[in-house]
Amino acid sequence: MIPPPALAPGDTLRVIAPSGPFESAPFEAGLAVLRSRYTVELAPGLDSRHRYLAGTAGRRQDELAAWLSSGLASVCARGGFGAMHLLPTLPPRVLNPALLVGFSDITALHLGLQSRGVMSLHGPVVTQLGRQPPHAVERLFRLMETPEPAPALEGTETFVPCVAEGRLVGGNLSLVASLVGTPYLPDLRGAVLLLEDVGERPYRLDRMWTQLKLAGALDAVAGIALGEFTGCEEKDAAGSSADVLRELAQALGKPCVAGFPVGHGEVNLAVPLGVRVRLDGPARSLSFLEPGVSPRRGAA
Amino acid sequence: MIPPPALAPGDTLRVIAPSGPFESAPFEAGLAVLRSRYTVELAPGLDSRHRYLAGTAGRRQDELAAWLSSGLASVCARGGFGAMHLLPTLPPRVLNPALLVGFSDITALHLGLQSRGVMSLHGPVVTQLGRQPPHAVERLFRLMETPEPAPALEGTETFVPCVAEGRLVGGNLSLVASLVGTPYLPDLRGAVLLLEDVGERPYRLDRMWTQLKLAGALDAVAGIALGEFTGCEEKDAAGSSADVLRELAQALGKPCVAGFPVGHGEVNLAVPLGVRVRLDGPARSLSFLEPGVSPRRGAA
Repeated sequence: MIPPPALAPGDTLRVIAPSGPFESAPFEAGLAVLRSRYTVELAPGLDSRHRYLAGTAGRRQDELAAWLSSGLASVCARGGFGAMHLLPTLPPRVLNPALLVGFSDITALHLGLQSRGVMSLHGPVVTQLGRQPPHAVERLFRLMETPEPAPALEGTETFVPCVAEGRLVGGNLSLVASLVGTPYLPDLRGAVLLLEDVGERPYRLDRMWTQLKLAGALDAVAGIALGEFTGCEEKDAAGSSADVLRELAQALGKPCVAGFPVGHGEVNLAVPLGVRVRLDGPARSLSFLEPGVSPRRGAA
Repeated sequence: MIPPPALAPGDTLRVIAPSGPFESAPFEAGLAVLRSRYTVELAPGLDSRHRYLAGTAGRRQDELAAWLSSGLASVCARGGFGAMHLLPTLPPRVLNPALLVGFSDITALHLGLQSRGVMSLHGPVVTQLGRQPPHAVERLFRLMETPEPAPALEGTETFVPCVAEGRLVGGNLSLVASLVGTPYLPDLRGAVLLLEDVGERPYRLDRMWTQLKLAGALDAVAGIALGEFTGCEEKDAAGSSADVLRELAQALGKPCVAGFPVGHGEVNLAVPLGVRVRLDGPARSLSFLEPGVSPRRGAA
């Protein structure tokens, strides 16, 4: 796994929109946060709209290709849907990879990059950044700039109290499930699978988990770290998402801790993907064993 | 492909509930329709409930196993979710297959049976049967009883005006996509893929279609027959489901006709799965080239 190079304050980064269109106010608020620390350039056509997409597949593919050849770190404007459309244009080998930051639908790109051996950063998109608390912003900047292991995270509930170590893979459950059977899902054997989601009813979480299970993708997973499942509750009393996930995790019998502050909740703490981690069920913690970025190009 | 034996009026059939729990009134209404023609026995524990499921996976697996060994035709009580849970208990070879009737979530079982070479019947579940018009009920009975090709169906719009022949595979798009990468999706090479869905926003239809495409499952499909997409519209103007499906079908470039009266609409016309069909784009028709049932056991 290749860690992309770290940034320094003042460095140039790019904002890209590989998924859905976005509203101006939250975007500007997030941009102000990024501009407080870095020089920000906006990809051309960033505010395009084609239905539920930030422009046609062609525009977004060109944007991705331009990013890949730029060598600049990129923060994604928003999730939504559409990053899957770009996967066939990812080159088989990513030369001189740069840091990619985002989550939710951006999971498709994280998985695609990881299937090509490149680490990336699961963290706030621009439209989410303006309403993150200071410690979440500080953590994001730290992870982008510091070639050291990230500070550990603490979950809220242990579903299966064992310990696992492996590479961290994942992000949004819907996208992980949507890449089953395609060439863009990294090998999950020995991995610690990170999962979060938003607006998916409990039976849908069950369906997506069951797809992973029936495909054999969970057979050799080392463990599962669950982030936020925001707005995933039923209106009737058909069971909470936590009940459903707990039951699924316990049936699987792999180390599993829930409630990490990662995803669509009020706090979305950045985590490096592709790095070796230790998921400790009894301690309810996720520790990072290696850095997600390499020393900055040209740094002493 | 093995066609299960036909029924005759008065024959015994079984009602099973492999997916979600159901309300009493529509269930009783559908049961009355079935009882007007056949002797109906209800699987034990049919009215169980475990969250959004008609009982635990264990109960539903036992019910499925009992059905498979009974040799009786079965009509499913309702869709919803949960049939995927039963797939690992399907035997590698289904001896003396009996007819299975249902749709929506029951697609998981249709696909599982078809991956084992067994034909089945995509048609109303019990809770939907009471509000079907007489011609839909007559068609269902005819297809259950007559070892002759089903009458052709007419669609409403041709998306790609070519002609294709192949075995009919599919049903609910969510379930077809959810079985990608598992051993339960039949080989789609040379198949005519039938797809319908309910309550899925256009971007979700796109996501599911894109999963099939990225997995290579659409590469050698002969054609695509689209049924109803009920309640699949956005509240805002992000594009209708028909616009999205038309664009996806035209980008794929395989024969594609939309608007067959199959699915969650007011009329759900039964169609045999696994039989050879002819999808005629210019004529907007789906013709059935062979019967979906074999002559009744003991029939002259």
